[in-house]
Amino acid sequence: MDKATLIGLMLGIGAVVGGQASEGGNIQSILQLTAAVIVFGGTFGAVFLSFPFREVIGAFRGIKKIIKEPPQDPYEIIRQITNYTNKARKEGILSLEKDVKSVDDPFLRKSLTMAVDGVEPNMIREVMEKELEYIDEHGKLSAKVFKSAGGYAPTIGILGAVLGLIHVMENLNDPTKLGAGIATAFVATVYGVGSANLLFLPISSKLDMRHRHEMIIKEMILEGIVSVSMGENPRLIEEKLISFLSEKQRSGQPMTTER
Amino acid sequence: MDKATLIGLMLGIGAVVGGQASEGGNIQSILQLTAAVIVFGGTFGAVFLSFPFREVIGAFRGIKKIIKEPPQDPYEIIRQITNYTNKARKEGILSLEKDVKSVDDPFLRKSLTMAVDGVEPNMIREVMEKELEYIDEHGKLSAKVFKSAGGYAPTIGILGAVLGLIHVMENLNDPTKLGAGIATAFVATVYGVGSANLLFLPISSKLDMRHRHEMIIKEMILEGIVSVSMGENPRLIEEKLISFLSEKQRSGQPMTTER
Amino acid sequence: MDKATLIGLMLGIGAVVGGQASEGGNIQSILQLTAAVIVFGGTFGAVFLSFPFREVIGAFRGIKKIIKEPPQDPYEIIRQITNYTNKARKEGILSLEKDVKSVDDPFLRKSLTMAVDGVEPNMIREVMEKELEYIDEHGKLSAKVFKSAGGYAPTIGILGAVLGLIHVMENLNDPTKLGAGIATAFVATVYGVGSANLLFLPISSKLDMRHRHEMIIKEMILEGIVSVSMGENPRLIEEKLISFLSEKQRSGQPMTTER
Amino acid sequence: MDKATLIGLMLGIGAVVGGQASEGGNIQSILQLTAAVIVFGGTFGAVFLSFPFREVIGAFRGIKKIIKEPPQDPYEIIRQITNYTNKARKEGILSLEKDVKSVDDPFLRKSLTMAVDGVEPNMIREVMEKELEYIDEHGKLSAKVFKSAGGYAPTIGILGAVLGLIHVMENLNDPTKLGAGIATAFVATVYGVGSANLLFLPISSKLDMRHRHEMIIKEMILEGIVSVSMGENPRLIEEKLISFLSEKQRSGQPMTTER
Amino acid sequence: MDKATLIGLMLGIGAVVGGQASEGGNIQSILQLTAAVIVFGGTFGAVFLSFPFREVIGAFRGIKKIIKEPPQDPYEIIRQITNYTNKARKEGILSLEKDVKSVDDPFLRKSLTMAVDGVEPNMIREVMEKELEYIDEHGKLSAKVFKSAGGYAPTIGILGAVLGLIHVMENLNDPTKLGAGIATAFVATVYGVGSANLLFLPISSKLDMRHRHEMIIKEMILEGIVSVSMGENPRLIEEKLISFLSEKQRSGQPMTTER
Repeated sequence: MDKATLIGLMLGIGAVVGGQASEGGNIQSILQLTAAVIVFGGTFGAVFLSFPFREVIGAFRGIKKIIKEPPQDPYEIIRQITNYTNKARKEGILSLEKDVKSVDDPFLRKSLTMAVDGVEPNMIREVMEKELEYIDEHGKLSAKVFKSAGGYAPTIGILGAVLGLIHVMENLNDPTKLGAGIATAFVATVYGVGSANLLFLPISSKLDMRHRHEMIIKEMILEGIVSVSMGENPRLIEEKLISFLSEKQRSGQPMTTER
Repeated sequence: MDKATLIGLMLGIGAVVGGQASEGGNIQSILQLTAAVIVFGGTFGAVFLSFPFREVIGAFRGIKKIIKEPPQDPYEIIRQITNYTNKARKEGILSLEKDVKSVDDPFLRKSLTMAVDGVEPNMIREVMEKELEYIDEHGKLSAKVFKSAGGYAPTIGILGAVLGLIHVMENLNDPTKLGAGIATAFVATVYGVGSANLLFLPISSKLDMRHRHEMIIKEMILEGIVSVSMGENPRLIEEKLISFLSEKQRSGQPMTTER
Repeated sequence: MDKATLIGLMLGIGAVVGGQASEGGNIQSILQLTAAVIVFGGTFGAVFLSFPFREVIGAFRGIKKIIKEPPQDPYEIIRQITNYTNKARKEGILSLEKDVKSVDDPFLRKSLTMAVDGVEPNMIREVMEKELEYIDEHGKLSAKVFKSAGGYAPTIGILGAVLGLIHVMENLNDPTKLGAGIATAFVATVYGVGSANLLFLPISSKLDMRHRHEMIIKEMILEGIVSVSMGENPRLIEEKLISFLSEKQRSGQPMTTER
Repeated sequence: MDKATLIGLMLGIGAVVGGQASEGGNIQSILQLTAAVIVFGGTFGAVFLSFPFREVIGAFRGIKKIIKEPPQDPYEIIRQITNYTNKARKEGILSLEKDVKSVDDPFLRKSLTMAVDGVEPNMIREVMEKELEYIDEHGKLSAKVFKSAGGYAPTIGILGAVLGLIHVMENLNDPTKLGAGIATAFVATVYGVGSANLLFLPISSKLDMRHRHEMIIKEMILEGIVSVSMGENPRLIEEKLISFLSEKQRSGQPMTTER
Repeated sequence: MDKATLIGLMLGIGAVVGGQASEGGNIQSILQLTAAVIVFGGTFGAVFLSFPFREVIGAFRGIKKIIKEPPQDPYEIIRQITNYTNKARKEGILSLEKDVKSVDDPFLRKSLTMAVDGVEPNMIREVMEKELEYIDEHGKLSAKVFKSAGGYAPTIGILGAVLGLIHVMENLNDPTKLGAGIATAFVATVYGVGSANLLFLPISSKLDMRHRHEMIIKEMILEGIVSVSMGENPRLIEEKLISFLSEKQRSGQPMTTER
């Protein structure tokens, strides 16, 4: 479970709904079907028109990803690569052939296979960097889908508000409907601004952070496998890989090789 | 038929119009000729002033493109290039001369011709990458035309609203006209904000996605033909080309060569 | 005459003024000297403070440029360069010395002179690319001047509106002045938003398109002259140069060399 | 103590609170719990949803950093590196081995260790530049957290205001509540706009400036150590390092080596 | 005296104040201490919190710079460098040693010293380009300080307006205070929007233009000195240097060498 995702969701929505309730504001006065249809129908309409079907669906599947902790622990990867280095130096790089089969991560498997196949280090780097480029481009799309939803929602909220106000204006001669009508119209603004700022934009940002986290791990794998295939010193490799991590990630982590 | 384009258009416009109707809002109260003339006349005026004539027309023609599925299937291209590789390895690269004629895509034909003519792989890459650069620049213009329409429309909607309000203010001494007048003025805002967020900006985004899809296929073709002309291993070429695709595109696709 | 510039100007301003008139809105009610002084005086004040004198004047001179068709026809340039190639291959590159004098375009003349003087192709490319860089930087300034005017105008329009409203508020005890006063105040908004979206921003965009068009022709000239000085095949040169053009520019154009 | 941070905080908040008080505005009228819960709860909810837990906490710890003066004096570093150069030229680079232990800064220690270990200058540059890249990426995140808070706060302030207005509208038949109710609603706007512009965005900017200051010192260290390991002239090294500083930083600073 | 700076300041402020006055608007009604304290105190508080003390002061000192004409005439520099070339070709590069002392510009002096000292042209370029990079980064900060002031001022103006409106709402039962109170509240908006658009943002833009002007002269100096140290042809050097200037700068300038 990703702590920050959970805290963020509960704190954000809790604060707004709770703040509203504590003032004696009726929760029902911000539940309104028409406003929801206009704002969310309009926003998702705009999103589907903006992106390929498969990317919109993929973005929604991405939400699952940001609720769980990121599956790959960079220290686990560093340990794994340090093991490969030690083995390759003792028994030759061909000895890693059996290890390839037990690797789940497709990027690590592909790089390791090339190294075991004796592909030249520079060639491994070139091919895998090209692959990384496209993985990066495709991987950024989920965040982009939510960012675009976060861009459409507030303006469509305003559209809903204006439509509501038109309705109100047509009934101006019936002053009793005035206040409630305007209140109704404002709910669309609440939905648009609220969904964008408490959900869509933060989700987009978290998806971006996760994607970058995954990319850094892939860049670390690439650097590590290239170093393994060049037969570099295990301690140097470990030091190189640790430099991919932030200071916050490094603190309190045991080193894998003694010094 | 592009599913997402259709869903997007119907969901977006349906939600706004339907939401409005379900509240007893009169559809006629949001149909207003003057507002339409100001907002759409002003927006397209700004767009024509912004771009060359040929690009504005080209952008509108691009709408057809995003309603249909993208014509080029990347797997078809991969299959085709794998065939070329096999043939070139068995019968020599000159044997591809006949294949050139049956190629429709001008970019593939031009690259393949260079390879058959014996142009050096590095030279093919250099010439075709330069061509790609200009194709990319020209191809982005259609999305840019709609993006700029999506930027002008809401502000010109506000212009229309302010003009309407000026009109209202001049008739303030006739209070019966007040509400209806303001309602009229707001319709311009609805047109501006609605057309930008439900049409222009999403169409711009979809055109951008399509353009990038086409560019990736072209980049894949270039990589493939350069590899063919270097006489690389067919399985390796296929693997290289697949790395241009996203995971979502890869799933459920049969491989063309056995392993 | 640039069709799109003309259509854009007439459609944009016509739609807004016509729409206003068709509703019985008095044209005089949007003609107001004070608002014009504040909005246009303020905007041009901000623009002069933002840029060097010579650039502001240069930007206004640039308007002439976007009313006329772009003077250089890329196909004419391609034809010219193909002629140079043929001549250089038949009679030697020195034979182009006489052609240099009849060249009007300073960029083409300078490149051709270097080629005739026997400067090495790589050196020509390096020197002329550096020159292109600075031409690009200086040439973008006119569009930037209008873009900045388009940024200042709406906010200064709001400034004018607020100043107007302050005036209105001070006379609140005289209700007869209320409506007309507010109407007056709104005219500043109309001037700011209207001039930015119907004039300044579209003019900036068209100047940008023109500048890029000129740059592509210069890049084409550079590529062509370098190829001439390397003694490349005329047909290959022509094909290279055509790849600088968009598909829309290519259609319906006759080729200059038979195949 | 960082003078500008202190002046900024006191001047900004003092001006707004003092200005409000001087007009006879009751300070209590801008202290309102519900508005605070909605705006700050919503903003931090959005921020936690946007970033990993560890980065949000890290960003808040960063505030301490911008209250104190930056700990590293660039002139101190230049002096240190000039000393290393002199020693290395007199006693050989191995003589710096003892100095390594007394170095606190991890970046300087790592570079110096590589130089003492006899790693080739180009290799030191390559490894440490890669490390710098990731330090830069991770180090920018704290500023990004506050920038995103500064983006969410004003819109969530508007959300709070609209929720307040809905509440007001429901009690329209009780006119005595009207003014105070609207006032309450506006406090949310004050909190959102105020916290973003007087705290979050300026803190983000200062964190960015500090981060860049630290990066420049690291770039200076890297340049210096590479020069030391190449055995360059001490005076030239000093001149090189001084070129990393701005003119404002240079004035009034004594040179370390006589000329 | 920089004509455009002067015209800009007088036209911008004159138009707004004059327009206001011509309508019978009382100038005193837009002079209000509380609004000024909130808006300018808040803005400068935010700016001091955003930047190091030394940069804020440096930015204000920069205003002097944009009132005067830029001190360095590019043609003067070209003439100077052409003289160096001629002298170096006739009497050897060492003959320039005496000229070094009479050079005021530190960048020119440093480059020329390196050339006289016999440093290799490529090394001069590398060292001085690195220096240029940091000069560029530091030099952009003054414009950034004013740009950030121009970003804070309007939103803090809105903050002041909302605070004013809260005050008004609390006194709603005293209708005589209503209009004047709202007017007072609007003055904060005028200060925020006005100072940003008539002062801060244009000053930022002009500082940017000046900085770029100075950078181009430095790039020209670097190119020139490198060419001198390579013993290039004086006429070629002059032509190279002129290509750094815009067409507008070139017109009407006499050439220094006969052709």
